[in-house]
Amino acid sequence: MHFTSEQRLDDGVLEREFTLGEIPGILWTPASSCAPVPLILLGHPPLGLRKMYPRLVARARHSAAEGFATATIELPGSGDRSRWPAAEQARADLRRAMQAGEPVSDEIVDALVLPLVDKAVPEWQATLDALLSLPDIDGPVGYSGGVISIGIRLAVVEPRIVAAGFFAGSFVPRAMFEEARQVTIPLHVLLQWDDEGNDRQAALDLFDAFGSQEKSLHANMGGHTGVPQFAGDAAVQFFTRHLK
Amino acid sequence: MHFTSEQRLDDGVLEREFTLGEIPGILWTPASSCAPVPLILLGHPPLGLRKMYPRLVARARHSAAEGFATATIELPGSGDRSRWPAAEQARADLRRAMQAGEPVSDEIVDALVLPLVDKAVPEWQATLDALLSLPDIDGPVGYSGGVISIGIRLAVVEPRIVAAGFFAGSFVPRAMFEEARQVTIPLHVLLQWDDEGNDRQAALDLFDAFGSQEKSLHANMGGHTGVPQFAGDAAVQFFTRHLK
Repeated sequence: MHFTSEQRLDDGVLEREFTLGEIPGILWTPASSCAPVPLILLGHPPLGLRKMYPRLVARARHSAAEGFATATIELPGSGDRSRWPAAEQARADLRRAMQAGEPVSDEIVDALVLPLVDKAVPEWQATLDALLSLPDIDGPVGYSGGVISIGIRLAVVEPRIVAAGFFAGSFVPRAMFEEARQVTIPLHVLLQWDDEGNDRQAALDLFDAFGSQEKSLHANMGGHTGVPQFAGDAAVQFFTRHLK
Repeated sequence: MHFTSEQRLDDGVLEREFTLGEIPGILWTPASSCAPVPLILLGHPPLGLRKMYPRLVARARHSAAEGFATATIELPGSGDRSRWPAAEQARADLRRAMQAGEPVSDEIVDALVLPLVDKAVPEWQATLDALLSLPDIDGPVGYSGGVISIGIRLAVVEPRIVAAGFFAGSFVPRAMFEEARQVTIPLHVLLQWDDEGNDRQAALDLFDAFGSQEKSLHANMGGHTGVPQFAGDAAVQFFTRHLK
């Protein structure tokens, strides 16, 4: 892990860009902390770190105010990272189906999501190895948001992640419902009740499938990007309960 | 309104029993407050105040710690209050249906709930008149929990109630779904995902029906009485956002 830039934000949060091999990422740590702080991995949709930066830095500041370090990485095939043909094909098929107003087939969803999960999860784990070797960061670790299928797989395979906050999204391959049953860590699931890009019933079915004994669903009004401020507060409180 | 007893609880909360005509009730106010405090009306199921007291006083203490007065009254036909034959018949029909493992018919639900709503809501409003004339209590007012149909009607007809926290329960007459569409105040709805006495889909449909622009559904694991502590905390935070 190589730090490539470092700046203090106006609220004192330290923002460091890094690369891990070919993967770019960003680490945020609270303004002042005498001891190592717990870490939350910030997931995001595959739209590129640069495009997602405003929303990510807002979540990072919010978390830093509660004493958490946060980190994120560019997803495979996003931003400046190399594409792979099958993913490009799946994205094109998705666009075509949505523009035609057709239902998005299981085949498209599988082609879009499953290879992304297979590639992204080991990268998150390698990032976790590197981050936990830093002196100012310590476990336990939470995972928050982003492509829910990546979060599900991480929750199943990565024992250092002890709590996860998910954003209920569509395009969850059927196979991930089986993996969801294997999740046992505490979960906090956000659902936008009128999410234009989200099948509400599928989100409720997925919530039902999770194997966790502690899982909470917080449904709020508004569309995909309309998550109210208090719902963000509740998500941070969830991590405070489980990581501190 | 006549106060019939007064005691300080160990955390300093002042508990006063009162009667309003034939209706017994309890008022709790925070240990110390220099100015009038906002009020939350504590709803409860029709099992009698005495039986419900432990859960009610816990909610009252929790609310007092955040600076709220709380009050509750005996529901018509509960505790020592006089029964009416139709309600007794409906309760007997309900017991019979449940013991036989039969579905509870719309007729039984209507007979059980609608007269209770018709009687209870004006009593809550009269109680509100009396409470708001006390020097240490001021608006705005919230309504929390209890028979959800009573809460729905109150939210529609009582403009002094500006926010409501509901506990998603079964036995909601179809007619109440229409009233739910007329509710416009902010709502915080708790749902126990595996509530043995609750039809989950009916609860989700009712949440969907509410006309409020701000409404949140918090679903948690466990049965009817298994609401986790953090869900109670979130409900109090909801009232803090809207009543302070």
